[in-house]
Amino acid sequence: MDKAEKVMNLAVRRGFFWPAYEIYGGVAGMYVWGPLGVVLKNKIIGLWRAMFIESHDFLEIESPAIAPYVVFEASGHVGSFKDIMVSCRDCGRKFRADTLLVEKGIEVSEAASLEEVDSIIRENKVRCPVCGGVFGKSSYFTTMFKTTIGPYSESVGFLRPETAQGMFVEFKRIYESFRRRFPIGIAQIGRGFRNEISPRQGPIRLREFDMMELEYFFDPENSDCPYLEEVLDEELNLLHEELIRKGGKDYETMTVREALENKVIKNGCMAYFMVLATRFIELLGIPRENQRFKEKLEGERAHYAIQTFDQEVKLDRWGWVEVSGHANRTDYDLSSHIKMSGRDLYAYRQLDKPREVEVLEVTPLPKKIRRDYGDKIRDIMRDLSKIEAEELKSLLLKNGFIEVAGVKLSKEYFDIKKYVKQVTVEPFIPHVVEPSFGLDRIAYAVLEYAYREVNDRVVLSLPPYLAPYDVSVYPLVEDDKLLEIAEDIRDSLAADGYRVLYDTKESIGRRYARADEIGVPIAVTVDHRTLEDDSVTVRDRDTWRQYRIKRDEVSRFIDLVIQGYGFDEVAGDMGLESFVSKE
Amino acid sequence: MDKAEKVMNLAVRRGFFWPAYEIYGGVAGMYVWGPLGVVLKNKIIGLWRAMFIESHDFLEIESPAIAPYVVFEASGHVGSFKDIMVSCRDCGRKFRADTLLVEKGIEVSEAASLEEVDSIIRENKVRCPVCGGVFGKSSYFTTMFKTTIGPYSESVGFLRPETAQGMFVEFKRIYESFRRRFPIGIAQIGRGFRNEISPRQGPIRLREFDMMELEYFFDPENSDCPYLEEVLDEELNLLHEELIRKGGKDYETMTVREALENKVIKNGCMAYFMVLATRFIELLGIPRENQRFKEKLEGERAHYAIQTFDQEVKLDRWGWVEVSGHANRTDYDLSSHIKMSGRDLYAYRQLDKPREVEVLEVTPLPKKIRRDYGDKIRDIMRDLSKIEAEELKSLLLKNGFIEVAGVKLSKEYFDIKKYVKQVTVEPFIPHVVEPSFGLDRIAYAVLEYAYREVNDRVVLSLPPYLAPYDVSVYPLVEDDKLLEIAEDIRDSLAADGYRVLYDTKESIGRRYARADEIGVPIAVTVDHRTLEDDSVTVRDRDTWRQYRIKRDEVSRFIDLVIQGYGFDEVAGDMGLESFVSKE
Repeated sequence: MDKAEKVMNLAVRRGFFWPAYEIYGGVAGMYVWGPLGVVLKNKIIGLWRAMFIESHDFLEIESPAIAPYVVFEASGHVGSFKDIMVSCRDCGRKFRADTLLVEKGIEVSEAASLEEVDSIIRENKVRCPVCGGVFGKSSYFTTMFKTTIGPYSESVGFLRPETAQGMFVEFKRIYESFRRRFPIGIAQIGRGFRNEISPRQGPIRLREFDMMELEYFFDPENSDCPYLEEVLDEELNLLHEELIRKGGKDYETMTVREALENKVIKNGCMAYFMVLATRFIELLGIPRENQRFKEKLEGERAHYAIQTFDQEVKLDRWGWVEVSGHANRTDYDLSSHIKMSGRDLYAYRQLDKPREVEVLEVTPLPKKIRRDYGDKIRDIMRDLSKIEAEELKSLLLKNGFIEVAGVKLSKEYFDIKKYVKQVTVEPFIPHVVEPSFGLDRIAYAVLEYAYREVNDRVVLSLPPYLAPYDVSVYPLVEDDKLLEIAEDIRDSLAADGYRVLYDTKESIGRRYARADEIGVPIAVTVDHRTLEDDSVTVRDRDTWRQYRIKRDEVSRFIDLVIQGYGFDEVAGDMGLESFVSKE
Repeated sequence: MDKAEKVMNLAVRRGFFWPAYEIYGGVAGMYVWGPLGVVLKNKIIGLWRAMFIESHDFLEIESPAIAPYVVFEASGHVGSFKDIMVSCRDCGRKFRADTLLVEKGIEVSEAASLEEVDSIIRENKVRCPVCGGVFGKSSYFTTMFKTTIGPYSESVGFLRPETAQGMFVEFKRIYESFRRRFPIGIAQIGRGFRNEISPRQGPIRLREFDMMELEYFFDPENSDCPYLEEVLDEELNLLHEELIRKGGKDYETMTVREALENKVIKNGCMAYFMVLATRFIELLGIPRENQRFKEKLEGERAHYAIQTFDQEVKLDRWGWVEVSGHANRTDYDLSSHIKMSGRDLYAYRQLDKPREVEVLEVTPLPKKIRRDYGDKIRDIMRDLSKIEAEELKSLLLKNGFIEVAGVKLSKEYFDIKKYVKQVTVEPFIPHVVEPSFGLDRIAYAVLEYAYREVNDRVVLSLPPYLAPYDVSVYPLVEDDKLLEIAEDIRDSLAADGYRVLYDTKESIGRRYARADEIGVPIAVTVDHRTLEDDSVTVRDRDTWRQYRIKRDEVSRFIDLVIQGYGFDEVAGDMGLESFVSKE
């Protein structure tokens, strides 16, 4: 049994996560987060929100998971968000081509075309792994879930494969309602959906997953990152393009300063978010040496990015696995939506000194229009009001007329003014760098890194601030007096805001073992001495060491341990008497 | 402008919520929660989680939003979750029949059939409200979003219209991983989807929305509610079936005790959750007299419920609007999934004394099977292993044989044993009562109830614990010394965990007004006296009264106000000097 299997067994047995819809045979790529898993996920979200959103005063939104076709047409996903699929001519089974080939030990580039895939399959005589049949020609499969919005079949929608488009499509509203604050970070935490062809990597490749995404909008003419100073000397593990091209397999460690000076990372804020991502994943219990940023090469990158690093962590079964992506999306998305929607998604830049610009103003002349087209005046005016000013100008100047309400209205029906104006601001399309995290993979990785076995027992050494319960409380035995005190302690710790596990059944050893297995960092036990001197024991999940402590000091003790101070360190500082455990 | 319009204007202007995809003309029934709205929603979720989940030690899960067809086939949604739709023969526009008729002032029962709707339309000569055309025959429209899971077109899935099925389908896993804790409450907070035909009530009728749902599983033979005692004397506003049948329009107020004694509410825990729901909505700022529980009559209820009360709140434009539903779902869902999946979704009840039960055991005899069907033995054994024991027994006893791997295997190939066994537990199918809340509607209602106008200014009198910022901090004027202190206070309050709004631009009056409009309960202002005696002013959003307070007491002051103590009360208790405001 490898570690992944052990972690998954634990997860199912204790209610962290399990495959969804098991009673109906399951659906590949869909998992349920159980009661312990939901607490873990929410704690990870809390940390991310504090580090990525709140500490910068960034803004968080929630947009719909379903978007109309046009959104993903504009964003380029309809054209680019697809995998190559091959179908067996005999049994009809369908496979994702790259996965199939990699499993046969055949390297295939993410940028391979249909023809290339077909010829690789032909040359290597790759057959159907289930029935041995021959494959037909490969084809593209759009990996977005498709649906219909409302009762009209032509109204196609997709489930979002990323939350990011919400931030782009709604950018202008947010920009305006926050008084044009700029640069501005807009984040979203929510469900994403990818219709994978045949996902088979357990909780690592899901069709439904939670994402934590941040779009940082900045002015390309002033791309200095305001947060950079603080991280210039911090190190990053980079498997960057140059290293990869030289055949390097291992990452290289360099400071942010070096990475920027050598143009390994081309944007300051991108480097800053990569540092935050490293710290974040480290806080979750995954050491830096098991983290790296792998650069995506031309052709491997998503269609919207000019530079991308995948933050990867080393997992036992699956090797290096992406937990976050760091992309420089430039103005790709906003520009695409401006083009497709014809709407203004610009930000405004304050000019150092006023500038003169030529202005062209076109105003319809209602009196003249009424004179010649009296019966249609209302329709004409209504239609004119629907045309964007810029479009009206360009059509009128190009064609000499504009067609509205079935009438060709020539230039003479408009007042056309040209003049020079002084402006102090100018519009521009913001650029964007995006750190984007996959929450489910991260939560899985946290469990794998916390998983240990000690004397055939499982101990989940989660960072105390991630544990599903902060503390467990036990009466040593089921004695009425001890029960009363234990319940009292349970209630008072719950009132202090801690999540308390309370358990009275079976031997104390088995109860400790059960709590260790789900990572409860501290056990508080009420024993007979409690009746004498109001002291209880506190037990360390990781070392099984115990100390005696006064009841009224327990809450402070827990607080310090959850903040991340070491158990023994806190016990030492508080002058606690250590206690010989019988485990 | 009615209040709804004013609230929506405020919501859009300041970033609480707005219609999604506006740059593409919008999609009816889809909204974005902006930066302030997300904070409000998360605070409401926090309160709900504390009241409904944590205080009972219930369990929270997260299951996928997409489910395979079979789940909603079993749950009855494929058959029942539909609206009657009519299409205009001329323009092709489609309408939800009941909405169309209600708008014409024609009453129509939720239980009306297609034929009844057609005849109502005929008799009342109802025409298309857009083009005046005649309607064709009405038809059913399934109001679930449909999609395909993976590359096989026959693999149909739906987006969940309720999160509840997750709790039913995964019930057994949770029950087992929490050591058969019972009764047990399982909750989920997450996105739900309803493909409304033509939603037109702004944020009230959405195609995508967040739900907070709790399924409380209990033993029907021991349905006493363990939480009931505490709420017996609490009052509920009930517009119950008997009242409705008598033509009553107003609710009747009675205690839980009376409601249960008179069988107005038929389940104790359902009454308990209705009390919690009343307290919850009251805590959100909606007074009890504007809340009621309206019973759904036979034919109006969802297909799974034997009794349902809708908790409604009175809104300005839309009248009484449902914010939560309280349904007694009995064992409907678990039974349906047991039937459809053939799996064991039972709980176990401890018997008072051991009971004797007849056991029938059927075991295949491989040697005998091999002797007669040697070449097919593997297929036969494999197929047999797939048949549930109960099914095997009943088929064998009914037909005298079972057909597997193309072979009719008669009884003689099995060892059939009948004996009597003592059991101390017995299986049963749990019953369920469900309180289910619609988060978006609740958040909207909170804003509407908080909305006030004072001297032409908008003040959002949110309960302080729901405000998007806990406190605002201002320097009176942009003076370097004042700025420095204000920034210092901002940072130290943020470090204490408060959400702080910091604003230095424009006159102090305009800054107060901007903060009042989004409901910030406390303003802290640094003025010239601060330089002398280290005191600042605190200003009450609702009364505009101000007090002077020492800097180091500000954090405690905020803490008390956010807990819900009155501003003047806290100021009085702390002995603060009141201060004449110039507003």
